[in-house]
Amino acid sequence: MHRIDIYDTTLRDGAQSEDISFSVEDKLRITEKLDELGVHYIEGGYPGSNPRDIDYFRKVSRLKLVNSKVVAFGSTHRPKKKPGGDETMKALIEAGTPIITIFGKTWDFHVKEALRVSLEENLDIIHDSVTFLKKHAEKVFFDAEHFFDGYINNPKYALKCLKAAQDAGADCLVLCDTNGGTITSVVGDVVKKAVKGYAVPIGVHMHNDADCAVASSVTGVETGASHVQGTINGLGERCGNANLISIIPNIQLKLGMKCLTPEQLRKLRDVSRFVTEIANLRHFKRQPYTGDSAFAHKGGMHVSAILKRPETYEHVSPGLVGNSQRVLISDLAGKSNILRKAEEFGIRLSTDSVQIQDIVTKLKELENQGFQFEGAEASFELLMKKSLGLHKKFFELMGFRLIVEKRKEGEEPISEATIMVKVGGHVEHTAATGKGPVNALDNALRKALEKFYPELKEVKLHDYKVRVLTAGKGTSAKVRVLVESGDKGNRWGTVGVSENIIEASYQALVDSVDYKLLKEEE
Amino acid sequence: MHRIDIYDTTLRDGAQSEDISFSVEDKLRITEKLDELGVHYIEGGYPGSNPRDIDYFRKVSRLKLVNSKVVAFGSTHRPKKKPGGDETMKALIEAGTPIITIFGKTWDFHVKEALRVSLEENLDIIHDSVTFLKKHAEKVFFDAEHFFDGYINNPKYALKCLKAAQDAGADCLVLCDTNGGTITSVVGDVVKKAVKGYAVPIGVHMHNDADCAVASSVTGVETGASHVQGTINGLGERCGNANLISIIPNIQLKLGMKCLTPEQLRKLRDVSRFVTEIANLRHFKRQPYTGDSAFAHKGGMHVSAILKRPETYEHVSPGLVGNSQRVLISDLAGKSNILRKAEEFGIRLSTDSVQIQDIVTKLKELENQGFQFEGAEASFELLMKKSLGLHKKFFELMGFRLIVEKRKEGEEPISEATIMVKVGGHVEHTAATGKGPVNALDNALRKALEKFYPELKEVKLHDYKVRVLTAGKGTSAKVRVLVESGDKGNRWGTVGVSENIIEASYQALVDSVDYKLLKEEE
Repeated sequence: MHRIDIYDTTLRDGAQSEDISFSVEDKLRITEKLDELGVHYIEGGYPGSNPRDIDYFRKVSRLKLVNSKVVAFGSTHRPKKKPGGDETMKALIEAGTPIITIFGKTWDFHVKEALRVSLEENLDIIHDSVTFLKKHAEKVFFDAEHFFDGYINNPKYALKCLKAAQDAGADCLVLCDTNGGTITSVVGDVVKKAVKGYAVPIGVHMHNDADCAVASSVTGVETGASHVQGTINGLGERCGNANLISIIPNIQLKLGMKCLTPEQLRKLRDVSRFVTEIANLRHFKRQPYTGDSAFAHKGGMHVSAILKRPETYEHVSPGLVGNSQRVLISDLAGKSNILRKAEEFGIRLSTDSVQIQDIVTKLKELENQGFQFEGAEASFELLMKKSLGLHKKFFELMGFRLIVEKRKEGEEPISEATIMVKVGGHVEHTAATGKGPVNALDNALRKALEKFYPELKEVKLHDYKVRVLTAGKGTSAKVRVLVESGDKGNRWGTVGVSENIIEASYQALVDSVDYKLLKEEE
Repeated sequence: MHRIDIYDTTLRDGAQSEDISFSVEDKLRITEKLDELGVHYIEGGYPGSNPRDIDYFRKVSRLKLVNSKVVAFGSTHRPKKKPGGDETMKALIEAGTPIITIFGKTWDFHVKEALRVSLEENLDIIHDSVTFLKKHAEKVFFDAEHFFDGYINNPKYALKCLKAAQDAGADCLVLCDTNGGTITSVVGDVVKKAVKGYAVPIGVHMHNDADCAVASSVTGVETGASHVQGTINGLGERCGNANLISIIPNIQLKLGMKCLTPEQLRKLRDVSRFVTEIANLRHFKRQPYTGDSAFAHKGGMHVSAILKRPETYEHVSPGLVGNSQRVLISDLAGKSNILRKAEEFGIRLSTDSVQIQDIVTKLKELENQGFQFEGAEASFELLMKKSLGLHKKFFELMGFRLIVEKRKEGEEPISEATIMVKVGGHVEHTAATGKGPVNALDNALRKALEKFYPELKEVKLHDYKVRVLTAGKGTSAKVRVLVESGDKGNRWGTVGVSENIIEASYQALVDSVDYKLLKEEE
């Protein structure tokens, strides 16, 4: 079977999205997730333009990746310089990745108007840059910027640029639709011609300004490209890049070509949602393949048909991409999920037990309030065990008070929490400060409980996220707080929801403590 | 020039979206807006399945539409019935529209599994239904349900269904990709074959389950269809319908065929946002052509190029679809972004002024601290005006204190804020409660200032967002707060950053107040 290479640029081109700003830690977590998914290449950043990316490349070399190779991205060397004396080139080499991708100009208009050099000079720049980098990396890929616009304007010159890169030893020639305005039929025609002329593998890199990026990438593969670039969920500048979350199953399930293993493909929904969470966005419900609505059926006629034969209104089986069928206004889908989860948590339940119905009802009620358990499995396990009477109460809250006080403009406010808890017959009343009100409350709660449960000293809070749920209600909106905690061996996520951020945080903190104590007992 | 008919089904197929429920009033307002835009047909509803739609058709006949014709939608008559005795047929006629569209089965699998009649019987049903309706309407369009799946499975039979509709007098044969899974190259091949066999105009109706609906619709037109169905913003069941907001400019600006007048095309962004508002959704920033980010530029290199020649990084001129170019403020940006912004704010600065360098330095410093001005242009304008000495102080904070108190488990905590401010020589000391600490502080701040600045009463807080910046630091992480405020005519965004969420919120709230007072003065 023909293999198509998947090249992910979520961390570079995707990071150009408006409202997105990944920390180095975010980028490392996404790298691990992409490796799990099994994409062949991960473009990690642009070390020549961004000091944060230099830090990323230093740290990413310590990760043990199984499937993916990390790539550093940059440009051809600057005009009037030698490659060896160019800062961008230096930064690329220092990144120390096995593969380097550079972009170069191929549209004559851009060569003259943006780069401001002669057409000949640009060919030399491409050739010399690739030649130089080939000495320092396993492979060098050449991104032909604005290739489609360039080809339409001056096909001979655009092809000459590809040839310059090929002659210098480039290992893949990537045709980029940088402005994203090329329609699919034109992409097919141009790729066909480019593939004929070159021995080196051809890639495509599409942007979505004409809303055709996914179809054009698929057409690119049908007309001869064997390397596809894109981002998770189509993140990227302006209208975004081609969405790999749609491209991968289209290539694999519709064209019958190979990108990932079937097990990897089943991680698609998980990866898609993970990146949304890290980017602190909302997952787009109507997103093909991985959205919540992607396999949700509303119309009564559709519902009765899919219950008999799902293929009547489903183009692929949702399980293939890790998604599932949803029948709106019905909890048929819920039960099987609950059963599957119970099994994971080591709880035995039968399909027709009354308790399942109770859990489904409780879950629906909480989800209506804004709870979401995807990043908070520990809270879900607690909910389940409470419903089944498998959970005991470790402490009782008698009350807390938080004070945030600012005495002067320009001065940081002081945060202090007092708390009173009861464990068995003992009452503990204590206080703590913190960098903010939530930190103060967290410190006070642990201080009070560590007396009774010294094992809590091992617990560290790793991550804290806040999501405002109800848009358009200003500062009285509902918020969801997600907390990620860990001890020596484990990490777990908990959740809280309230109109009061302190209350939402408190719920998530209490669940985190509860979960740790429950695991110690088990 | 070849004219392509645009057929909008936002009010029928689009209304099948999860989370959408249009009232009759909503539908009438959208109808008027679509007529302004100039689409040729507006499918208003399914009178046979929905009593609300009957009401809509009664009321829509009183609107004075200039450009569009209203269409009622339904199905072929039920098996074992005569068309004249069928309730759906009756409802269609009673809707009283000049045009009626009915769908019929064309996939042999569906005929047998869902409709449960013989293949011959289904042909009769199609023929008799169209024949009957032709007596009651100017035109009858036939939606060939699942045509692409049907054609692939049994091309002869699928084409026979089209022929039955044509022979009965159908005025358009619409090839539907009901499950949305057909890829673009297949759509092109099938349309080409269907166009050859039939004298009647061919239409296409795509769904977006493979993320190809826009490209496939455009390809459909290139291969011979002259009628395109879709919805505004791609609303619709599962992954939605083909998005007319992308299809229309693609056909008009890329294929050079005619759908709308240039003046109508300039209403595209307005119509796109209007439907989003009525549907009570958020407008998708990355939406091609009409999204806020569609022509937004972030990278410094891109910005300096578009300032010289916009076509270097813009596939079409944004004004053609009623959108505009935006330059984003971010640490990737350089001097040219700042100059461009200063111009927008009505500040005169020359390229080599020392003040620009000061602003760039200040901006980089703040962005290192975690500030981000992309969603907070008002804070950026204040920053700029403060740097240039163009901003005066409206009040001084003497101090605030916030108390959040929870007295019992399961009880919501109470939030109270006290605040002291000085305006001129007057000191105001007051207090307020709120749904959470930020809401309480917000209420107290306004209460204190409204005495001196009654114009603040107009200001409403529309949105409040919190982003945790430093992962892996638990509850002592830094947070960024974005606040969106508005008055009668305007909306503006402000930002604050701190390890203390209260302090970060306070900064954003103060900027919001400051901005309003500054604008009142100007």
